[in-house]
This record gives sequence, structure tokens and C-alpha cells, in this order.
Amino acid sequence: MNFYPKDSCGIVGVFGTPNAAKLTALGLHALQHRGEEGAGIVSVNDYGQFNHHKNIGLVSQVFANGALDRLIGNMSIGHNRYSTTGKSVIENVQPLLIDCQRGKIALAHNGNLININALRSELASAGAVFQTSTDSEFMLHLIARSEGTLSEAIGEMMSKVSGAYSLVICTKDELVGVRDPRGFRPLCIGTIGGTFVFASETCALDLMGARFIRDVLPGEMVFISKDGLRSEKSKVTAACSFCIFELVYFERPNSKYIDNSVHSYRFEMGITLFKEQPCEADVIVPVPDSGTPAAFGFASASKIPLEMAFVRSHYTGRSFIQPERGMRVDSVKMKLALIGELVKGKRVVMIDDSVVRGTTCIERVKNLRDAGATEVHIRVSCPPHKFACHYGIDFPDRNELIAVSHQGESLCKALNVDSIGYLSEEGLLKACGGHSFCMACFNGKYPITPECAK
Amino acid sequence: MNFYPKDSCGIVGVFGTPNAAKLTALGLHALQHRGEEGAGIVSVNDYGQFNHHKNIGLVSQVFANGALDRLIGNMSIGHNRYSTTGKSVIENVQPLLIDCQRGKIALAHNGNLININALRSELASAGAVFQTSTDSEFMLHLIARSEGTLSEAIGEMMSKVSGAYSLVICTKDELVGVRDPRGFRPLCIGTIGGTFVFASETCALDLMGARFIRDVLPGEMVFISKDGLRSEKSKVTAACSFCIFELVYFERPNSKYIDNSVHSYRFEMGITLFKEQPCEADVIVPVPDSGTPAAFGFASASKIPLEMAFVRSHYTGRSFIQPERGMRVDSVKMKLALIGELVKGKRVVMIDDSVVRGTTCIERVKNLRDAGATEVHIRVSCPPHKFACHYGIDFPDRNELIAVSHQGESLCKALNVDSIGYLSEEGLLKACGGHSFCMACFNGKYPITPECAK
Amino acid sequence: MNFYPKDSCGIVGVFGTPNAAKLTALGLHALQHRGEEGAGIVSVNDYGQFNHHKNIGLVSQVFANGALDRLIGNMSIGHNRYSTTGKSVIENVQPLLIDCQRGKIALAHNGNLININALRSELASAGAVFQTSTDSEFMLHLIARSEGTLSEAIGEMMSKVSGAYSLVICTKDELVGVRDPRGFRPLCIGTIGGTFVFASETCALDLMGARFIRDVLPGEMVFISKDGLRSEKSKVTAACSFCIFELVYFERPNSKYIDNSVHSYRFEMGITLFKEQPCEADVIVPVPDSGTPAAFGFASASKIPLEMAFVRSHYTGRSFIQPERGMRVDSVKMKLALIGELVKGKRVVMIDDSVVRGTTCIERVKNLRDAGATEVHIRVSCPPHKFACHYGIDFPDRNELIAVSHQGESLCKALNVDSIGYLSEEGLLKACGGHSFCMACFNGKYPITPECAK
Amino acid sequence: MNFYPKDSCGIVGVFGTPNAAKLTALGLHALQHRGEEGAGIVSVNDYGQFNHHKNIGLVSQVFANGALDRLIGNMSIGHNRYSTTGKSVIENVQPLLIDCQRGKIALAHNGNLININALRSELASAGAVFQTSTDSEFMLHLIARSEGTLSEAIGEMMSKVSGAYSLVICTKDELVGVRDPRGFRPLCIGTIGGTFVFASETCALDLMGARFIRDVLPGEMVFISKDGLRSEKSKVTAACSFCIFELVYFERPNSKYIDNSVHSYRFEMGITLFKEQPCEADVIVPVPDSGTPAAFGFASASKIPLEMAFVRSHYTGRSFIQPERGMRVDSVKMKLALIGELVKGKRVVMIDDSVVRGTTCIERVKNLRDAGATEVHIRVSCPPHKFACHYGIDFPDRNELIAVSHQGESLCKALNVDSIGYLSEEGLLKACGGHSFCMACFNGKYPITPECAK
Repeated sequence: MNFYPKDSCGIVGVFGTPNAAKLTALGLHALQHRGEEGAGIVSVNDYGQFNHHKNIGLVSQVFANGALDRLIGNMSIGHNRYSTTGKSVIENVQPLLIDCQRGKIALAHNGNLININALRSELASAGAVFQTSTDSEFMLHLIARSEGTLSEAIGEMMSKVSGAYSLVICTKDELVGVRDPRGFRPLCIGTIGGTFVFASETCALDLMGARFIRDVLPGEMVFISKDGLRSEKSKVTAACSFCIFELVYFERPNSKYIDNSVHSYRFEMGITLFKEQPCEADVIVPVPDSGTPAAFGFASASKIPLEMAFVRSHYTGRSFIQPERGMRVDSVKMKLALIGELVKGKRVVMIDDSVVRGTTCIERVKNLRDAGATEVHIRVSCPPHKFACHYGIDFPDRNELIAVSHQGESLCKALNVDSIGYLSEEGLLKACGGHSFCMACFNGKYPITPECAK
Repeated sequence: MNFYPKDSCGIVGVFGTPNAAKLTALGLHALQHRGEEGAGIVSVNDYGQFNHHKNIGLVSQVFANGALDRLIGNMSIGHNRYSTTGKSVIENVQPLLIDCQRGKIALAHNGNLININALRSELASAGAVFQTSTDSEFMLHLIARSEGTLSEAIGEMMSKVSGAYSLVICTKDELVGVRDPRGFRPLCIGTIGGTFVFASETCALDLMGARFIRDVLPGEMVFISKDGLRSEKSKVTAACSFCIFELVYFERPNSKYIDNSVHSYRFEMGITLFKEQPCEADVIVPVPDSGTPAAFGFASASKIPLEMAFVRSHYTGRSFIQPERGMRVDSVKMKLALIGELVKGKRVVMIDDSVVRGTTCIERVKNLRDAGATEVHIRVSCPPHKFACHYGIDFPDRNELIAVSHQGESLCKALNVDSIGYLSEEGLLKACGGHSFCMACFNGKYPITPECAK
Repeated sequence: MNFYPKDSCGIVGVFGTPNAAKLTALGLHALQHRGEEGAGIVSVNDYGQFNHHKNIGLVSQVFANGALDRLIGNMSIGHNRYSTTGKSVIENVQPLLIDCQRGKIALAHNGNLININALRSELASAGAVFQTSTDSEFMLHLIARSEGTLSEAIGEMMSKVSGAYSLVICTKDELVGVRDPRGFRPLCIGTIGGTFVFASETCALDLMGARFIRDVLPGEMVFISKDGLRSEKSKVTAACSFCIFELVYFERPNSKYIDNSVHSYRFEMGITLFKEQPCEADVIVPVPDSGTPAAFGFASASKIPLEMAFVRSHYTGRSFIQPERGMRVDSVKMKLALIGELVKGKRVVMIDDSVVRGTTCIERVKNLRDAGATEVHIRVSCPPHKFACHYGIDFPDRNELIAVSHQGESLCKALNVDSIGYLSEEGLLKACGGHSFCMACFNGKYPITPECAK
Repeated sequence: MNFYPKDSCGIVGVFGTPNAAKLTALGLHALQHRGEEGAGIVSVNDYGQFNHHKNIGLVSQVFANGALDRLIGNMSIGHNRYSTTGKSVIENVQPLLIDCQRGKIALAHNGNLININALRSELASAGAVFQTSTDSEFMLHLIARSEGTLSEAIGEMMSKVSGAYSLVICTKDELVGVRDPRGFRPLCIGTIGGTFVFASETCALDLMGARFIRDVLPGEMVFISKDGLRSEKSKVTAACSFCIFELVYFERPNSKYIDNSVHSYRFEMGITLFKEQPCEADVIVPVPDSGTPAAFGFASASKIPLEMAFVRSHYTGRSFIQPERGMRVDSVKMKLALIGELVKGKRVVMIDDSVVRGTTCIERVKNLRDAGATEVHIRVSCPPHKFACHYGIDFPDRNELIAVSHQGESLCKALNVDSIGYLSEEGLLKACGGHSFCMACFNGKYPITPECAK
């Protein structure tokens, strides 16, 4: 329990309908890509009674067998948990639900705090009892200790925690959406009739049948109760530093950021990528799904024909076979099959959204060469990954990042490619509309210094 | 989470063997009769790392599939949970495991606190965060808040909580057995070579292959560490009030209390019962299993022949059939079958350990009469149950106790028996060796006034 | 699939109630002791539609979760399977359900055929396709091949198969109960209002709420349809040879054989056992449950006091712990605990229903001696087991039978007892009322020569 | 069991490696799209011992938990079952495994027989016992009855059954691949070192790491044993009629037919579709995945830009929510999300592989219009579906086919589209290289008259 895993999760909140838990489950299903390890929902009925169901597994598994029918109430919050380590423990699946002097409070958290040792030590010496190994629990302790109103308590908590956090919180009569002052992780507001909805991405609103209202702003607390919606601003102010990797990779292409779809930003990345890193080739091959929009942009700029030569499997089952001696199970091929004749005898430029460890990239290049590609070039729709993320994305250790250990010729050799080209930081920023982003994973400029770096 | 269920559970602790968790599981299996709802074990290895496994179900189910292999370490505590309400929630299965300024602490609790509202209110106003709906969590909060040594912290906790509690606690290097100052619930110490063992009853020691050393005394804290066994006495003193119902019904007949087996006390109850409530009959029929020893005592005193006419089924499966109209499923018959010819044409005296609600008693009498018994008399090896237990036994509400609503002729009529005779309080006390017992469920004299009665 | 396991199973059939499947499940639950490996039910509705559900596990597990609700129809048959080997395969769980020129037929079988090689070879060369590894399938093939009426077909089948078989069979409109010409395995008929019931033992009738009518006679076919009950006699005639071991061990004490309860036969065995093998002792200790009635008989004849010193556990879970080095898990103790003080310093005579391998017997004797018994004598309520059963009881190989490898002094030494005494064949026969029994497991006189012995 | 479901399944066979079952599982995983209901594998070791494992579920679920480790042996066959009806029964999951006068035989079948009533009646009157409700079982009965060599027996079976069947069969020492005389369903041969492999599609060879050798020819039996590969031709001859819908929809785009990838045929369909059914539009939107290659062909011919506006979800979970009143769960949206801005204000031509019932098509059109598409045109890469398939594809009843009930304007109105255009039969044939195909689902010209039409 001294282990605080990074988590890139999905969160949902619903207020004002007897279908609250079912809508929440639909929203979580639409956000399943943000976390496949576990899922949970807490619902609250008009008498202030809380119901709770959570488990390891996908949303559709956790809420099979009528679990949703027992989650009665007009208010509900939910959470998808991202698996960051081998060990899945149900205790860490959210929402967390506690009782305290304020009564019961449930909380679901997307993001990662960076001053956990300080928080833990302060709380522990005040007699706090921790029952999970999540940083999210600290926020509940801080709220429970505060004696002011709920908004004062959340404000006080925000002044003490540091890092990335988008939250949905519910008490017996209020639903709250919170985003940290820098807005690392997304959180938006929608509506269906008189029902209000929070969700990590707008793609959840679409499936829930909700209309997008606006994003929760960095540093904003949005309270929803029978009296309607009320907004408060945290006293903590800071420059916005939205996670650029949400746009590059994490979010669904049909989700929206500011006024445009994630797809459109990725398409722009592809256009800029071609301008910065042109390439002579006979065919463009995207690595689906997240590399596809940039590949279309690259194609539109370069006029090189694009082929969906990699075909994604709809069945994962990564671990059901333990191969034995003399048998090779290509887990990369289990995810993407290749239509060999589309690349045979051709110069291929493969468009990927990012190259992190490089291991799957090497396999894909091998597949292309085995199928007869005469040249293989890689173009990547973001800069090289060189630094850890402390705000909720689970990158491997620095020494496992291939752009740290290899550059230039050495990198091409390691990947067995004829050339590699990354999008520049400036190019990426421009493609993303020039908004204010955290790009620490590329350049090490951390908006808030993490504890471990002090 | 404002619900604090009464629990009559089984607890086990082991120190000093790499098989700690497996021994603990064996002990819990031997104590399965004390709680069938759920089971859990926490183990600690030499590096102070804690492992935890718990679930709803029997010990043999919860620890199937290799769960014990992952519970490594030389120290371990375990818990069987008694189902007191319809809803089984994994959160309430013990041991509880927390982290705090003292590091990690695990606790397993048998008993019931009676000042929970006061405790809750004091802790909550100090900012405590509750994550279970058990009274056991309060004890952890109190220990976590104390700044002294572990023994000071436990001592302080004991001065604040009121009620029944036998506990096993483990920190990263110590195992502690604790019994409340009145000793409501049992807890004993055993040894196997250099390994120390705590268990609720001695029947667990037998299965674990351990030798009985002695009981943990009321108000005693027994600390076991690499330095051996150390005893401390709580500053709270009180007269002993051991639960008489443990002897009457709850414990296994092969468990020991003071120097004798539970069987022998029950045999004595039967002898005294005959003296106090003699009966002319042709055959004595025990209600197995807990009524059997008293029936043997009754037989030895009365010289009336005893027949094991009720045969216990080894398969429960109480709820797998939902009977439909025109179909009668006799759940009492599913548990005990009757060998009709042993009672046909005879005057039967049925010996039972207790009559609480009276519902199963009524069914048994019907079975006996259907099989041709000419008279049915009941003799009960304890006094009439008339009061709630606040110290951990889950009796129904007072108005469901048949001895509250019916007496004398009316009671015989309700049960459809020719006569009924209960053991007197004095007779019961004498049969139990004249030790100091809590008999509140019979006479309403509560050793500690419960909160609800104030 | 060349493996035909012996099976001592329980079978049930119900005709004439919309609760047919639920009644069948109740009956199977009462017969659970006859087979714990798997269970199945086939039901038939008025339109001749068959439903089928079966699985590995206890009746209460297999039919949990609403399976019974889907087994609609007024007719139903069921089966409990006995686990005879390590490998449990769902294919072998009965009832078997087939389609053929007669339409669909379901069959459940208790017993064991002895001419399986001949049957298999004859059927195979006629083009038969086998899909299970049970001998029961042969009977279905024989019925399917016959071109006469159903009763002609069953009669023809009975003339071809040899061995032990009690059967319940259902077609789209008839329920049939069949017992082989020698009547090795039991089968009885009962009624509830207009509903007819077949069951292996009368204890199932009791739980189903049915009144016992009579046994199906050896060689009899009992047909039940909308026209009522009709009996036919097989052309094959043979002397009755009811399995004596059903009375000694297998049946529940409350089941009936001829006019008396199984308990009463066992009680008589105990009386005769004392007469034949008297013993000086201070206390009689039964090995529950099947040894208890004989011990009561032995006590009534000898006037030695009886104590229920062995206490049976209600939780099995035999295999959940894999003990490690330095740890001893006494699986015998997990089943029976000992109240030591009842035997301490005493000469004990332990009454058991049978001694087969001797392994658990050795453990029990050790427990008694460890608890301080000064002498341990064994009296066994049947003769020594020396021969295999070919008619459905799963004894171990001859060379594992302790009475084959040891006699007299050598046997006492092996078991570490002061004396051992078995009931004689004559004594056993007499205690069982002098009826005609198969005693081949004691004397090797097989009523029908098994194929393997030819 | 008079119910013979149509099944479009995947089959695999492996000979000559100790990893046979694991390779088979990999192959089945690659063929998962051909059947998601259940999966099974039979393996055979050098001693002729058969092992069997099958269950309801995906390959990765059925073979989780070490099931593959128990499937030892150098030979193995496997099967993916397609769910055609609500009721999934494990009995119908293949491979079927029987015992008969030839010893044990396992069989896995892809396709559908059309003379099942005749077969059933002939076999039943000869005394056959059926234990599944599959047509596949008939083939085993016919083989079991034949007295000649295995190849004679299979040949004889082929002369009696009529319809579509690709088979893998294994006996204790031979693996056989069989394709019916018209070659309705695919089956190919591959090799890895000395190991031979059969699979329904070449995409399975790719994942297994096997090299494609050739297709099994229509009417061919390919025997593989320790003596190598041997081919025999069935005496039944017929014109080839390969299922065109395998190319249009069923097979994976990276699988091969004759010399080209399925992708390339679909690309050609798209080119021809534009030529036959041109359309003025601003954007081409494919319905992924099977509509994508044709859309690329359509784009290449029309020069209209293509956008991947529909984004496929990687999580199905179709049934976990039972929506309540006032809540709309759009199951079509759960599968495909739309990037609205790519179609907003544009004239859209949506390319789909087929329109069968029309229900999902209507939903997609609605999504496009809701997102602001000004016109919606549909182009379909095959002719209108108007007839049932009797050879293994599970189309709905004729009266549910939208092209049967609606044409022309009425069809456009039903789908709410501005225009719809289908590829012609001639166009489709040409795109598929002019080979000999069954196109009965379009034109009702059945290569073999089905029983039900006689």
C-alpha cells in the first residue's frame, strides 16, 4: 500500500434520472479504451442511500447479470480503471466510497498526484487510516477532514494536492465535477433533457445520447444538485497544460477537443508531418487505429496512395497460449494482420502515432519486409518520447524508451528501417491549434515539479 | 455504512512458520461453524510485506485454486465471517488491512462493540474516513491515532471501546492476541514446535496439530514476536462474563473450556435437565448435533433409551429450489431426516440445545407426530431465550423469540407438544462449573449497558 | 472411451405434475450420498419436447441459477453420478438423451453391466456410433435397434445385457422403471396424489413428500403413462441377489428395505456382532455415520456405554490445502474430530461398518491412542472384504484390500489394535432377515460370472 | 434434436508436431470471425489416445486456464462454431468425437447438408442412435457403418450426403481434409517444417506461421499420416460452385482466394461498382471492416475523397444493458461511432458490402443525417440478397430480406437514402476473376436442389 500506480482512466457522472447507473455504464463502455482493468459504479437514491458495484474486468463483464438493476437512484458516478501493473486488485477499483463526518462520499479520479509522499505523511501523522493503495484516497481524507461547506472542503483539498486530477464526486445530494488547475486530463459536461452528465471524453456523451455543453475548465468545480448547475473556481491558479498525448494517442478520434474532433487534429499532424519529414514512397500504410487519421493527412499532403494494409483483429486474447519450444506466437500479428500484396515490391512509409519502446514497431517492420516491401520508412505523428509522465500516462521507464537509447542511424538500424522522421514539437503544437499543452514527455519541461525530482 | 452487523466469527493467528497461511486456513476450516459467509487471510513476510486474500464463501472455496500459495510469510491472521443479514459484501469480510503512521496493520475481530455511535462520532469529527460498515474498523482507527508503542496503542483502544472483542492483530513484526476485559468471546493459545498459534476454539488447535497452552485471559494482550511471547494486562478491569451460549450451542463439542470439553458441560446440562424437568417417555431423541451431548446426559440420568432417530444430512443446498404452487419443500427435512420406526407408537422426549424462534422446533414435532409418536415432550438444555445479545450472537428481535410471546400451556400449544421443560439458570450455571458467565439473553442482566439501552 | 467406470448412483423419475423437474431435483438431493460427482435431469412436456440440464457438481450447484425453471414438463428423470476416477467428464453425466427411429429416449442407470465387451463388439460391427464411455449407452443402442413396441424393445435389451441395472427411462409419453432380474440395485415406487415417482431409495420419497407404494421387483418393467401404471415381467428369470453392501453401508439409515428401516438392519448387525465377537471394554465408540446404528445395537447387547466421541464435520473441502514440508494435514481429522476425554484412560471398542483399505481405520486408531485410550478393539459389522464388485460398487483393487493382505495377528498389528472382530456371513444374513443377497465381495461367489473372469 | 442449424464455421487440422493443439488454437483464433459461439479441439497422441476440450465462448476463453496443456499429441483438429440461434448448447460444439468399429474418429465440419431428412430416416431405420442435433453427426454414422478402408468409407459417405461440407477428420493415425465436390466452403493446406496444416482460410496459416501450399480441391480427400500426404478424388463429380459471399463478406481481407487476397477482389468490386453505379458525392464513407476495401476501390475509380468517418469500437458487450423506459441504447452506435465533422454539410456515398435486413443500414443513415450530411447515397458491393442459402450461410428468412420486400423508390424511402446502387451479378463475377461461383442467394439458382424445395 505504499504503491501508487499511475492511472489513465475514464470517469462518468450522471444526475437527474432514474436511469443514472445505466447511463453511467453506457458512458463507461464508450470510455473503455481509457481503462480495461476494472470498472465500478456508485449510485445514490433520493433517500441518500448509496449502492456500489465494482470488479475486475470490462464494463460489459462487470455489469452483466443484472448488477445495474440493483444500482438504483437518480445520481451515479463511474470509473474505468487502467491496468498499469500485473497485479489487479479489486480494492483499487474505483469509485472509492467512504463514510465520514460529512456522511458518505464517493469519488472517481482520472490522473495522478505528484506530492503523494508529503500528503501521506501529513495525513498519517494526523491519524489517518488508509485502506487502498491509490493516491485518490488522499483526496477523500482531505475532504473528510475539512469542516467547511462541501465547496470549501474541495477547494481546500485542491490547495493541498498537486498533480493531475479530473474528478467526479457525489455526496447524498450533490454531484461534483472537478478539474485540476492545469487541466491535464479532460472532463466535459453534457445534458439529456434535464439530466446532467460528466464524462472524460465527448464520445461518451454521444453514446449516452447527451448533447455536449462545454468542458469543465481547469481549476473549476461544477456542482449539480436539485437546484441546477453552479460553478466555482479554485483559488489555485496556474497556466493550462492539457496533456498533448490525449490528442496524439489516447482519445477516440470522434471525441472533441475545443471545437474540433480529435480526428481533425491528427489529420493536421499528418499534413505537417509530411511537410517536415517528406518521404519518397509508393504506398502509405497506417498503423491502425490511432495512426490512421495522421496517415490520411500525410496522404492528402503527399498524394502518395494510402492502403489499409494492416487489418486489426477484433479479438484480443493476448495471453491464452503459452507457446512451447519450437513454436512462435507472434503477439503483434495477433493484433494486426497484414495484406501482403499491398506492400509487395513497394517502398512503404508506415505512419504511427508514436514509437515508445519500439518493440511492436520492430515487429511491424519485419512483417512488411517479410511481405516483400523494398523500403520501409517510418513517420511518427509526434516527437520522440524521452521523459516519464508524472500526470497519469503510464509510459515505461526512461531507459526502456527507444528514443533515449537510440538516435539517427542507430535508431534506423535498431528498427531496421530505411528512414525515420518524427513530427517536431512546434509542428505538433501548431497542428493542435496552438493551445497551451503539457509536452513534458517529449521535452522534460514539467509544468509542476514531481516529488521524485526534488 | 451506518450498519454494524453482529458477528459471531472465528479467528486464527500464526507466528513463526513458513506455512503460516496454510496453518491459518486449516484453523479457519476447523472454525467454519462459527461463520460461513466469508473468509480471509492476511500474511506477512520477513520483509514486512503484507499479502491479502478474502472472499465470500466457505474457507475451502475461498482458498481453492492456489490462493494460499501466494500468501507467503511466517506470520498470518485469518477470519471466518458469520452471515447475519441477507446481503453479503466482500468489503466487510475480514481481516481488515490498513496503512497508517505505524505502517500496515491487519486485524480480525470476533465480537460486537456496544458504543459504536459514540466511537463513530468521536472519530468522524476528528476527520476519520470509514471504508467498511464494521465496528471492527473503529478499533483500527483508534490504534492508528495513538502515538505510543503498539501496546500503549492497543491499551488506549481498549480503554475507549466497550463490548465484546477477541482480536488477532498483526503488524510487520508482531502478532497480538487480545481479549476484552470481560472475556465474552473465547481465544486460546497453542504451540507447534516453535510456532505460536491463536484460535477462537481449541478444536482449531487439534486440526492444526498444535498443543493447547492456555486461554488468553480476559483483558489480556499477548504479543508474539521473534523475542517470544510477552503478556500485558489492560488497565481496564471488569468481572469476567464469558458467553454461556458458546457452551450451550456455539462451540464444537470437542473444544475445551477451562479444563473440560464442551461435550462434558453439555452432558452435565442433560443430567441436570432430567433432574429439574423429569419426563416419562419411551425414547429420548436428540436434535443433532448440538443437542446430542445433553441428550446423552439426560439418558444417563433417566435410563430412558436414546435413539439417533434424526439423521443429519451432509448436504445443505438450502435455497436451490424455489417451490411452486402445489409443491411443498420442507427445508427442515432437508437438514434432518427421521427414522420413523424408532418413534412409532412411542412417547418421545426430544432434547434440543435451545428454542429460539420455535419455527424449526414446530417442524420437528410435526415430523415426529407424522411418524406415529404418541406423545412428544421437549426438554431444552438452557433457559428460555428472552433478550437480545449485544455481544456478538445474532438472535432475532425480541418479538420473534417464542419464549417472549408464549409461556406455559400457550407455548405447548404453539409447539404442539405434550410438555416442555427448560433448564434453569442455576442448573445451567452449575452444569458449567459455577464459573462467571454472561446470561443476559436469558435474564436481561447485561454486564455492560449497550448504547441503545441508554 | 474404452473405459467403463463402475457407478453407484442415484436415480429418480417423476410422472404427472408440472413440478416434475423440481420434484426430481429434491429426490436427487436426498440421494446425494449415492453420487457426488455430477447430476442431470431430462424433462418432457406434453408436446413431447425434451429439455436437458446436467453438469459436474452437487445437485444444489448443478441446479442453482434457475436451471430448474427451464426444465418444464410433466415428466422427468434424473441421475446422480458417483465419482470413481480422477477425471470427471460432463459427457458421462446422465441422463443420456438420444434420438432414434423411436423418437427421443432418455435413460438414467444405476449399476454396472458385465458383458460390455461382447455388447460393444456386437453393436460396433452393426455400425453403432458411441459417444460416451458409459456402459449405459449400450442399453440405448439395443432399445433403438429393436423394432417392436417399447416394452418389447426393453425386454429384448434385458435379454442381451447382463449385470446390475436399475433404470428410469422416458420417451415422449411414457416413464419406465426397470430393475435387472437379480435386483442388485434398489428401485422403489411412490406416489403423491396422482403423481407417480421412482427413486433409488425411500429416503428420496420422504423428502419429495411421496408415499411409498412398493419396490420395483427384480426383472420387472413398470410403465407409467396417462393410462396409469402397468407392470410387465422380463422373460429373463434369475434368483434375487440384492446387494448386501447397500444395507451395510450405502443406503441412508432412514431408507427402507422390505419392511424395515436400514437402521434396524444395522442395529441387528450390531447385536449379532457382539454375540459373535464379544469384547471387554469401557466404552463403545461408533464411526459415524454408517457405523452408528450397529454401535447402538452392540451397546444394547453388551450393556457397555456408548459415546459419540467422534464428531463429524459438516464441511468437507478435502483438497483445498496442499501441505508443504514440515506440515501435516490429517485429512481423516478433517472429517471426524475426537472428543479426547471420552476415551482417555479407557478400553475402547470402535464399531465401524466396514474396513476396506484400512487407511482411515489406522488414522482413527491413532487418534484414539493419542487421546489416551488404553486399549483399542475394532468390531466390524460385516465380513472381511476380499473380492471385487462387478455390479456397481467401486471397491479398490483386490491387492489394496487389507483383509486380502493381512489376517489375524498381522492384521491387528497393521491396524495397531488389540483385537479385531468381523461379523460372519451367516450373522450378517440373519441380521438382514434371511433374504437372498449377493455377498460376492466377501466370498467371491458371483451370481453372474463377469466377462473379465471368463 | 430434429433441429439442424446452419453453420458457417472455421476448421483447423494439424499433423506432426507436439504443439499440435496449441497451433490449432492459434489457427482457430485467426478464424474467430467465422464463429464466435463455441470452440473445441480434439488431439491424438502417438498411442492413439484422444483428448477433447470444448465449450461455449471465444477461443481465448475456452482454452484459457491450461486446457491446451492437457491436449497432448502430435495430431489435432479444431472447430469454431457460429451462433445461429439463441440457444447455445455445448453438445453441438464440435469437433464431434465418436467410437465405432473403426476405433475413435473425430470430425469438424464447415457447411450444411441439404438431404438431412433422407439421411436421418435411412440411418434411424438401421438402428442409429443420435446424440447431437447437428447434420455433421450423420457423416460420422455413415463412415462408422462402412466396412472398407478409411478412404473407401469417406468416399462412400461423400456419395450419400449432399450439400456443403469442408471437413477435417482424424483417426488414431491419420488426419484427413475433405471438401465437397462443389467446393462451397474453403479449405487450404499449409506447412511449417515437416508439419502439415489444414485451415478454412489462409489468414490462419499466417498466424500459425505456416506456408500456404494449395487449396484442397473440390471433391478431394487429402490424407496425412506418418507416410506423408496422399490425395484421393471422390467419385462424385460436379461443377465447382464456390460461395461468392465468402469473398464479399465472410473471409478476412488478408486471406487468399486462388492467387489474390480477398482484399483485392473487394477492391475490384468497388471499382466496378463505381462504373456501374456512379454517384456524385463529396465524400466516400466505408462501413468498416468488410466495406472498406470496396470503398477504396470506389474511391480510386471515382476520385472522390474517402474518409474513415465510421470508427469501429473494439468492445462489443452488446447485451449488458437492458434499457428502461425513457432511455435509448443505440446498439448500432455501440459498434460504430461516427466522426460527425467529416460528413457535415457534405453529400455522402456510403459503401457497404451488403444490405440484408436493412436494419443496421437504416441506423447508419440516420447517424449520417443527424451529423449533417446533406445527401446520403448507398452503394453496395454485391447484388440484392433475395434468396436463402442452403449451404451454410445463416441469412434470415426471405420475408425479412429488405430487397425482397422493397425495390427502387420504395427501398430508398425505407432506408431514407437519396439513392441506392447494387453491384450487378456480372460485375461481381468479373471482379472475382470469372471463376465458377454459387450465387444462389442473389438469383435463386441453387447448384443442388435442397430437400425442402423438392
